[in-house]
Amino acid sequence: MKRNLALGVDIGGTNSVFGLCDEYGKLYFEESVSTTDYSTPEELVDKIYERIKSVGHLPNIEGIGIGAPNGNFYSGTIEFAPNLKWKGIIPLARLFEYKFKVKTILTNDANAAAIGEMIYGAGRDLKDFVTITLGTGLGSGVISGGNLIYGHDGFAGEYGHIRVVPNGRLCGCGRKGCLETYVSATGMVRSIHELDSKHSETSELINLKNPEASQVFQLAEDGDEFAVEIIEYTAKVLGNSLADFTCFSSSKAYILFGGIAQNGPSFAKKVKGYMEDALLNIYKDKIEIRISELHDKNAAVLGASSLVWNELS
Amino acid sequence: MKRNLALGVDIGGTNSVFGLCDEYGKLYFEESVSTTDYSTPEELVDKIYERIKSVGHLPNIEGIGIGAPNGNFYSGTIEFAPNLKWKGIIPLARLFEYKFKVKTILTNDANAAAIGEMIYGAGRDLKDFVTITLGTGLGSGVISGGNLIYGHDGFAGEYGHIRVVPNGRLCGCGRKGCLETYVSATGMVRSIHELDSKHSETSELINLKNPEASQVFQLAEDGDEFAVEIIEYTAKVLGNSLADFTCFSSSKAYILFGGIAQNGPSFAKKVKGYMEDALLNIYKDKIEIRISELHDKNAAVLGASSLVWNELS
Repeated sequence: MKRNLALGVDIGGTNSVFGLCDEYGKLYFEESVSTTDYSTPEELVDKIYERIKSVGHLPNIEGIGIGAPNGNFYSGTIEFAPNLKWKGIIPLARLFEYKFKVKTILTNDANAAAIGEMIYGAGRDLKDFVTITLGTGLGSGVISGGNLIYGHDGFAGEYGHIRVVPNGRLCGCGRKGCLETYVSATGMVRSIHELDSKHSETSELINLKNPEASQVFQLAEDGDEFAVEIIEYTAKVLGNSLADFTCFSSSKAYILFGGIAQNGPSFAKKVKGYMEDALLNIYKDKIEIRISELHDKNAAVLGASSLVWNELS
Repeated sequence: MKRNLALGVDIGGTNSVFGLCDEYGKLYFEESVSTTDYSTPEELVDKIYERIKSVGHLPNIEGIGIGAPNGNFYSGTIEFAPNLKWKGIIPLARLFEYKFKVKTILTNDANAAAIGEMIYGAGRDLKDFVTITLGTGLGSGVISGGNLIYGHDGFAGEYGHIRVVPNGRLCGCGRKGCLETYVSATGMVRSIHELDSKHSETSELINLKNPEASQVFQLAEDGDEFAVEIIEYTAKVLGNSLADFTCFSSSKAYILFGGIAQNGPSFAKKVKGYMEDALLNIYKDKIEIRISELHDKNAAVLGASSLVWNELS
């Protein structure tokens, strides 16, 4: 009996995805369930166990990797995740280990994405890079010298909450001007109403009832000047911020992951331009902006499962 | 014959200090020379070699550690240091190795200070902290999981050049608003002329010909209201910045090193207060502001020599 698969589990506020893959990122099984259907995490663990058992792969599992909101690597717990109905501190890694009897590693989703890029994706050739996940919010995972930076408590790499505009937009965290209030899907939608522009009144964006970031990119392609401005502004805030963040890690690359990075093929180029303009001299012309290579694959499960191979290597 | 001493060399724009110490930080010898007396680095290496030979310790040297401005750990070189008259790229580690025939490690002075704190100083009990050196400028060295963060090119940890005030004070690097233009000895002196205050005109600071940061602290103790304001402002800019920088590394402590940290016993407390006010919730009440424990010792030589023990361990 050869154990050669990792079980990757991505816990989301709406859906949770789990799947099996080998160390080359080849996927053998994947399934999605509604997280909110499970009133306790134990019920979800049971469900996943039954499904894996039913497809016959239980004996092949080498280890389990979990990406979760507010996931703490050191304790293997989810701590006070605002978008989950399981409240308080959830010892999820321990519950999986108890049921499956294999080593389980848990971290937050952006950290899992960073390790996923290093093992299977756009960071395979790198030892120093930062993954920036652009979704509802902005997450980040920092790889330095081939290791993920966890910090003393497991909460390092929260770039979305670095304040980049003094007294700027109010953030869900209660503070003002956090990067994710500008650079994220919701940040771009906020820009429709909060960015000053002479083009806003004639833009189609203003008339959309529940606009989405993807529509900003679509309209920009159609020549909508306000949409073009919003993309430019978003890229500028991100590029400017990455220039400063480089003083922390001096990374070789920033890898952009998520809808915004996919939607605009030229978005990364704009970010790079603004970043170069603002970089300290010693960092100029050295740093790449890359697009995630996990996009077309099953990114969430791959990222989570990569925790297992990273731990074993 | 027992090799049990490290040679620590601190290269400064004005003076260079070298000395011998054991792995517990006990100093056996120390001497200072004028850097500018040596037109080439080879002459300085020869001089140090002769001195060490003359005191009979040549056979005891286990390794050499060098702290230098613009020092690059990976290449062992000093690269384009603006305050040295040796121009271009200087392969200093290689020159020392060639002469002394022992392993030589070079990095920048703030990184050496961080490793010094970890080996001998206020970071002995920590694996995740950042040293902030407050001198003419602001340097930093980041320890994460017990390792110094070097970045892909050896230039990580340049917190002095993170822009914290949009369109703020012009920095020597050509950019505006860098942290070190506010929080450093020269930054505090700039505040005498650049900080708006109703108390400035009645302050003694205004009449000083070549004011120094230490005089700001002295006058504040004497009740000079403008001096008090400058200290408060400096602590506020630093505390606010450290709150955001915590989103990088989630460090357990910031260790303040250098004159400013020594001058005001209450300075660290003020910094802590401003930092706590501005921290993201998940980091609150966890992070310490400590004062360097290398101050009363021979910090520069200790920091440099610690590179040897850190490498060997």
